Amino acid sequence: MKISRRGSVDPFIVMDVMEQARAAQAAGRDVIHMEVGQPATPAPRLARERLARALDSDALGYTVALGLPELREGIARLYKRRHGLDLDPARVVVTAGSSGAFLLAFLALFEIGDEVALGDPSYPSYRNIFKALGVRVRRIETRPETRYQPTPADMGDSDGLLVASPANPTGTMLALDELRALAQACAARGAAFISDEIYHGLTYERPAVSALEATDDVFVINSFSKYFSMTGWRIGWMVVPPSHLRAVERLAQNLFICPTHASQVAALGALEAEDELEANRAVYARNRALLLEELPRAGFRDIAPCDGAFYLYADVAHLTDDSRAFCARMLDEAGVAATPGLDFDPVRGARTVRFSFAGSEAQMREGARRLRAWLGAGGKAAR
Amino acid sequence: MKISRRGSVDPFIVMDVMEQARAAQAAGRDVIHMEVGQPATPAPRLARERLARALDSDALGYTVALGLPELREGIARLYKRRHGLDLDPARVVVTAGSSGAFLLAFLALFEIGDEVALGDPSYPSYRNIFKALGVRVRRIETRPETRYQPTPADMGDSDGLLVASPANPTGTMLALDELRALAQACAARGAAFISDEIYHGLTYERPAVSALEATDDVFVINSFSKYFSMTGWRIGWMVVPPSHLRAVERLAQNLFICPTHASQVAALGALEAEDELEANRAVYARNRALLLEELPRAGFRDIAPCDGAFYLYADVAHLTDDSRAFCARMLDEAGVAATPGLDFDPVRGARTVRFSFAGSEAQMREGARRLRAWLGAGGKAAR
Repeated sequence: MKISRRGSVDPFIVMDVMEQARAAQAAGRDVIHMEVGQPATPAPRLARERLARALDSDALGYTVALGLPELREGIARLYKRRHGLDLDPARVVVTAGSSGAFLLAFLALFEIGDEVALGDPSYPSYRNIFKALGVRVRRIETRPETRYQPTPADMGDSDGLLVASPANPTGTMLALDELRALAQACAARGAAFISDEIYHGLTYERPAVSALEATDDVFVINSFSKYFSMTGWRIGWMVVPPSHLRAVERLAQNLFICPTHASQVAALGALEAEDELEANRAVYARNRALLLEELPRAGFRDIAPCDGAFYLYADVAHLTDDSRAFCARMLDEAGVAATPGLDFDPVRGARTVRFSFAGSEAQMREGARRLRAWLGAGGKAAR
Repeated sequence: MKISRRGSVDPFIVMDVMEQARAAQAAGRDVIHMEVGQPATPAPRLARERLARALDSDALGYTVALGLPELREGIARLYKRRHGLDLDPARVVVTAGSSGAFLLAFLALFEIGDEVALGDPSYPSYRNIFKALGVRVRRIETRPETRYQPTPADMGDSDGLLVASPANPTGTMLALDELRALAQACAARGAAFISDEIYHGLTYERPAVSALEATDDVFVINSFSKYFSMTGWRIGWMVVPPSHLRAVERLAQNLFICPTHASQVAALGALEAEDELEANRAVYARNRALLLEELPRAGFRDIAPCDGAFYLYADVAHLTDDSRAFCARMLDEAGVAATPGLDFDPVRGARTVRFSFAGSEAQMREGARRLRAWLGAGGKAAR
């Protein structure tokens, strides 16, 4: 049997780094995890308690493809709370994480051979999923002057535009007028507009704006993974225009049958857990402040302006031109796992590194200490 | 925004029937569910208890993309127990249900434009997923003489062959010599061979044979949904040749990140729950015997020879040439939900119906009674 070309995608490098970190730990090493975008916290207590009750009382079989009506309503209410929007719950599609939402959105919107514009650096799976699905990517090399976000002028005549705000790996956000301009540019071209809002809720200076505040003609993708601290539960959602609902439903029926029922039940509990989740966010805020002070002291001076998410994206051109080897040495010599920028920007990422501050405060403090010792004493080793 | 052609797949009709049945119940009707392939039982007690413990002790974050090592080992041991095979756990890929396995397998094996041979009647999502992924389907009209299974002569020069045993909707199985002949035909053409074994464990006359008993050059797909009674948990697996493991892993990292962690923990418990699961199977066996006696009395005389799964596939050409309208009337007039054959065979399925006997014994008895009354008294209404 052959292996298909379209299926020969790049590895998701951060997952390989996780595996290296796991192997180092299994060999007795103590590792500080700054590689993975994963909260150290479990799902909120109310989520776990709700599922624990359902385990005794509900068969938890298939749900309808678009998800439990009660959960779709709860998600719609979130847009009222966060953005003052009256959102019809019928437009909410519960998905198998944002991963499931990407597959549904990309298949519903793009033919084989279509081109989608995408700003680098960005979440690596975007381009890998597009490749597997036969969709071409127009790489936009974003610049610090636009906070590493694409602008209408970058779009060319693409069939679609995918943006993320707060973005991974930079943490930068798009303002309402910027989202409006991008939505208008897409509408003018008949291009699809997709807004990845998976880090909403995790902001530190001002709240994030939803693309739904700018237009209804957009696919908005979100998830319970990050703010709601439920990465392993694989539960997310999408808000789609009414015109696309039935197409998305048919795809969801055939590709997924339904999202995990147990995760949907837990998500219902998570929607009520604001106190616990805001306490989590306060930890991230302290981690962010700590690292924005400590990383420059350690030698990471050029960091993208992090509005949200839990990442700091650092330019390390003065330290290496091979971020993958640099991160491998960082893990080996300093006991700190971080993700090479190559995961997010196949070209310029050889000179960047992403640090996640989703871990505990004590871990972040120790990570910073190790990095300072490593680069201070062994600057040469790092080169 | 446009809606893509490739994403404009057929609905999964059974899910629309489920929705009609739900609406009828919401309107106060009493409905016997013979439409959906879903056990009436919850996940086994040991599965739920294992998860309940983990909810208190484990953060249940991302797992590695291929799944928990302990679960992959447990699944490998299942092949020893069921088939006497020594299977390397490294070849086991834990997936988001068999749905997730189909996506990974099809993307890893087939280019856009490739052709895959597929016997009709068959699970409708096969052809719908292929369409979305740009893979052409060579429809094989299977016949009663080959127990509705494809033969090497049917393959043409396709780039792959997908078989299911026990099959949905017919329940028929492939014997070892038949699987060998199909595997050889694929190998001779350099074609991919995929064996859907999701109904393994649910057999009534003789055990099912795994394609792994015939060849290692095969993608075998299975799931915890059916025998293990965990449909809503979206947890399945795939056994792949070592040559394809890394390609599948990269796709899994990018498309899914990982299967639901909570479901993986529950699946570990399910692997230990043989007593409870064999008791479930005894109910299906009684339901099958009951319906094989009662359905012909009601007027459904031409039923495919059901070796396994929990379906009876009946030819209703003497009753209708529009199975969709026929099933709608059956729901409306008899209060029995069943699935039109059109879900499984877009051509000949206008004259067939699938009954699921996954429900309780009492429900099946009542369903049979209603069908007998309906067709006996109102045969004309049914026409």
